[in-house]
Amino acid sequence: MHRTHTCGELRIEHSGTDVTLSGWVQRRRDFGALTFIDLRDRYGITQLSFNEEIDKALNDKARSVGREFVIKVQGEVIERSNKNDKMPTGDIEIKVSKFEVLNAALTPPFTIEEETDGGEEIRLKYRYLDLRRNTIQQKLVMRSKLNKAVRDYLNDADFIDVETPYLIKSTPEGARDFVVPSRLNEGQYYALPQSPQTFKQLLMVGGLDKYYQIVKCFRDEDFRADRQPEFTQIDCEMSFVERDDVLNTFEGMIRSVFKDVKNIDLGDIPVIPYDEAIKRFGSDKPDMRFGMELVDIDDVAKGNGFGVFDKAESVVAINVTGGNQFTRKQLDAFTNWVKRPQIGALGLIYCRVNEDGTYKSSVDKFFDQEKLKLWAEKCKSEANDLIFVLSGNAESVRKQMNELRLHIGSELGLRKKDEYKACWVVDFPLVEYDEESDRWHAMHHPFTSPIPADLDKMESNPGAVKANAYDMAINGMEVGGGSIRIHDKALQKRMFDLLGFTEEEAQDQFGFLMNAFEYGAPPHGGIAFGLDRLSAILAGTESIRDVIAFPKNNMGRDIMIDAPAELNSDQKKELGMN
Amino acid sequence: MHRTHTCGELRIEHSGTDVTLSGWVQRRRDFGALTFIDLRDRYGITQLSFNEEIDKALNDKARSVGREFVIKVQGEVIERSNKNDKMPTGDIEIKVSKFEVLNAALTPPFTIEEETDGGEEIRLKYRYLDLRRNTIQQKLVMRSKLNKAVRDYLNDADFIDVETPYLIKSTPEGARDFVVPSRLNEGQYYALPQSPQTFKQLLMVGGLDKYYQIVKCFRDEDFRADRQPEFTQIDCEMSFVERDDVLNTFEGMIRSVFKDVKNIDLGDIPVIPYDEAIKRFGSDKPDMRFGMELVDIDDVAKGNGFGVFDKAESVVAINVTGGNQFTRKQLDAFTNWVKRPQIGALGLIYCRVNEDGTYKSSVDKFFDQEKLKLWAEKCKSEANDLIFVLSGNAESVRKQMNELRLHIGSELGLRKKDEYKACWVVDFPLVEYDEESDRWHAMHHPFTSPIPADLDKMESNPGAVKANAYDMAINGMEVGGGSIRIHDKALQKRMFDLLGFTEEEAQDQFGFLMNAFEYGAPPHGGIAFGLDRLSAILAGTESIRDVIAFPKNNMGRDIMIDAPAELNSDQKKELGMN
Repeated sequence: MHRTHTCGELRIEHSGTDVTLSGWVQRRRDFGALTFIDLRDRYGITQLSFNEEIDKALNDKARSVGREFVIKVQGEVIERSNKNDKMPTGDIEIKVSKFEVLNAALTPPFTIEEETDGGEEIRLKYRYLDLRRNTIQQKLVMRSKLNKAVRDYLNDADFIDVETPYLIKSTPEGARDFVVPSRLNEGQYYALPQSPQTFKQLLMVGGLDKYYQIVKCFRDEDFRADRQPEFTQIDCEMSFVERDDVLNTFEGMIRSVFKDVKNIDLGDIPVIPYDEAIKRFGSDKPDMRFGMELVDIDDVAKGNGFGVFDKAESVVAINVTGGNQFTRKQLDAFTNWVKRPQIGALGLIYCRVNEDGTYKSSVDKFFDQEKLKLWAEKCKSEANDLIFVLSGNAESVRKQMNELRLHIGSELGLRKKDEYKACWVVDFPLVEYDEESDRWHAMHHPFTSPIPADLDKMESNPGAVKANAYDMAINGMEVGGGSIRIHDKALQKRMFDLLGFTEEEAQDQFGFLMNAFEYGAPPHGGIAFGLDRLSAILAGTESIRDVIAFPKNNMGRDIMIDAPAELNSDQKKELGMN
Repeated sequence: MHRTHTCGELRIEHSGTDVTLSGWVQRRRDFGALTFIDLRDRYGITQLSFNEEIDKALNDKARSVGREFVIKVQGEVIERSNKNDKMPTGDIEIKVSKFEVLNAALTPPFTIEEETDGGEEIRLKYRYLDLRRNTIQQKLVMRSKLNKAVRDYLNDADFIDVETPYLIKSTPEGARDFVVPSRLNEGQYYALPQSPQTFKQLLMVGGLDKYYQIVKCFRDEDFRADRQPEFTQIDCEMSFVERDDVLNTFEGMIRSVFKDVKNIDLGDIPVIPYDEAIKRFGSDKPDMRFGMELVDIDDVAKGNGFGVFDKAESVVAINVTGGNQFTRKQLDAFTNWVKRPQIGALGLIYCRVNEDGTYKSSVDKFFDQEKLKLWAEKCKSEANDLIFVLSGNAESVRKQMNELRLHIGSELGLRKKDEYKACWVVDFPLVEYDEESDRWHAMHHPFTSPIPADLDKMESNPGAVKANAYDMAINGMEVGGGSIRIHDKALQKRMFDLLGFTEEEAQDQFGFLMNAFEYGAPPHGGIAFGLDRLSAILAGTESIRDVIAFPKNNMGRDIMIDAPAELNSDQKKELGMN
């Protein structure tokens, strides 16, 4: 037997017990005749003690081990003379009587500590060592709990966990598929799913009623920071539902997850129409932890001889509460920040609201106190606030202002790591026009239904049609999205027509789904949550790599196992490649 | 709102309630002025009633729908005059006041009934319709429950659910990998995992201590009946364990699963050494539901002038309790059965034990009553039993006898569908010699540790070394298997040497694992269960296709979506193929 207890469970009440522990040497300290080893496993750290005067051979053996050796000890639990109230096991130590090295260890290439000295590249290469760090382990434990919380909720709500296939058919829409050559069907390929979308719809046609799956999906996209070629979704679909049935069900799920995993009561989850989200925040995934909403000030900004405003399509302000404290240097820094190419603003106008009620702006030449007062009234500014103004193309200026709002929010500490605010965004546009390909593209995917009231605009004014779709954002990050689907073959055909699919293309790619709709498809809708992103948010980390056991780097490579790699010639020959 | 209740929940106590139901038309019956529709959803069937004399328009509407139309009705729950005690909802019906067709349906190509008239090919093509059959739905619901039962047990036992990557590196050992060309790393390929074996071992090196995952695995094997290119495993690994820790943990899991899913208390699970299993049953996955064990009768069979026995390596008997009832015709049928090429026996000897204690055998010419009595004593035969004897090469004859034993067990109804008997088989040979490639092959995989007592035979007599490995069989089918792993780099090297890996091959294919072993790998072991097979056993079905939502056919094709398929030329070009 390798252990009677873990390294995290012994307490003062175990004193006098004879125990066996196994684990890794976290550190060793030698003090004269005494030797102490901190023994670590997933559950915690327990101190081992050795005394040369009691057993010299044993003490010598203890002094032969280095960091990360795997050892097994037997001994008595005793009360520590020098207690450590920062460790759950800090009241006791093990007076070791038997000692065995289970496995030796080379010195690890970086320290296995909360704050390690290893860079990301080396930690990815030796991921199995990085996994030993408590901070990483706890994130994986948390993800496992999240997984369980999701399943508990959905199982209780009568959802069936159904596996859909991984070897499917390529559909050259949207992102690129990874493909898998079929050795036994030469010249033919499977594709890995970007999502189980069509299969979950077929499950609804098949009468499964409520489906969920926590499932890997694959996208062969050009790599960029924090994007993984394989990612995990909580994928769900329900029959005989309308939008609010779905929102209620998954608001319940997210509440339950936060309660189970973090013991947090998530507040109300507001439902915000897309147009309103853009108007108030310049974003369809607003961070609701703080205000500083966008204010349209066209009427008080234009027509005062300031050319920049006058020729702008849109002038937008935000009020920074207490922002008058910003120094000139800080204001310059914000200006430079918005002028960076990533944001792309041409400049940043400010207006200070002084303690005494007077105003001081960067455009005093064009706006007198009376006129600036109108700005302040529109922005509901109070003494000691500061107004920032951006102008330009309507769409760009809202995007820029969204970025500025988030940046200031971060700078002012308004985006607290331990605070969580969720919202639904609904009524997205159904389609968006793509200049380059000169056609309409689905905002979500081609199975999303228009809201019933907009059906008659599908051909006459597609851009004005709202989708019966919804996204959930938490703290400014999209965590999930879905829609009520088209369940009617005729409507699905109108949608394919709108998206420029020929009948043949539609039949070739989605024929089985359209055929299925001939045989009594129920009204249905669903949602998918990104488990990696949700895990990262709950773990309070920026990078999804932190919540993935074996992540790939930004180039899609697993540098630990060195994949992808070349095939040997036998394999290639069998697959009909040269 | 599409429904207030499901089609399975209304009872007599709901009488007088106004409800809304949605579902599929299972059947319609017209009786004079009355129309009845059985409305179906996942949860059950509820009868709807219409009366022409009360509302002619509504009744006409009801008569316009056919099988599998999706409809929504509103009405009052009333007590039925003609109750049906075979249906949970059989005491009531809905007196419909509002009626809406949500979706029309073509007549399905086969009947959506418990016993359908559709062949397998057409049911696979229209799998979304086959899924509507209660018998298929219930199997998927059961699988979902099985999934939950496994997770509940493992979560309670402190296992962490960790996802391992799907895009990994090809290892040209064992079965063939499916490979995935990397567009962004031209000429390089990922491989889909045949199992997460190395990753779960790395998780143990990483200190995760107890891991599980329910995970898809992939094997590009030549197709044969009931083999799927993608399959699901319950994959587990534990640190600081010895064999019996693993057996106890997973015996607990299997018990828990049978209790949760079938409310069955699985009896004791015996632990049978491989050699004993082969000796008693001729199989390393014995069906323990019945006896009829193999008996070696060399000593009483050989040396009596019967050349067939005399020149055979081995003579093996089984005693069929009450088998004397078999007619001559039945005996001929058994003889023909074992002579089929799939079994390959040259003949089958029998010996009847008559009521009066005399014997009648097919080899009376060589064996008199005294000698046949010795057979009967060895086989513990009683009056009215029958002994079957096979002879030949020791290995083949046990295999043939295993098949015969199972066949007779089936014929006699000893392999009851609703009875479950599990066993562990342990102490497998570590390696087996492959004549063709002239080298030793791992019976399980190259990470399986030898049992410690046999370590010194690894080089001198590899064939005699037992593996610290274990399989679980239920009702004669292997459901899981695993081993205590090698955690020591030196031993792993000896194993690779034995298997004929050059240092370069070992380093190239498993270098990351061997490197990991340098940094303090703990003793560890694990197991994987086949979820598809386990589901099929619990569902009492022969075919794993029955417990997979969207299975592939025997040629590895998904005939519903028509995959695999050819790529279009753009895709091929992007992947650097022509």
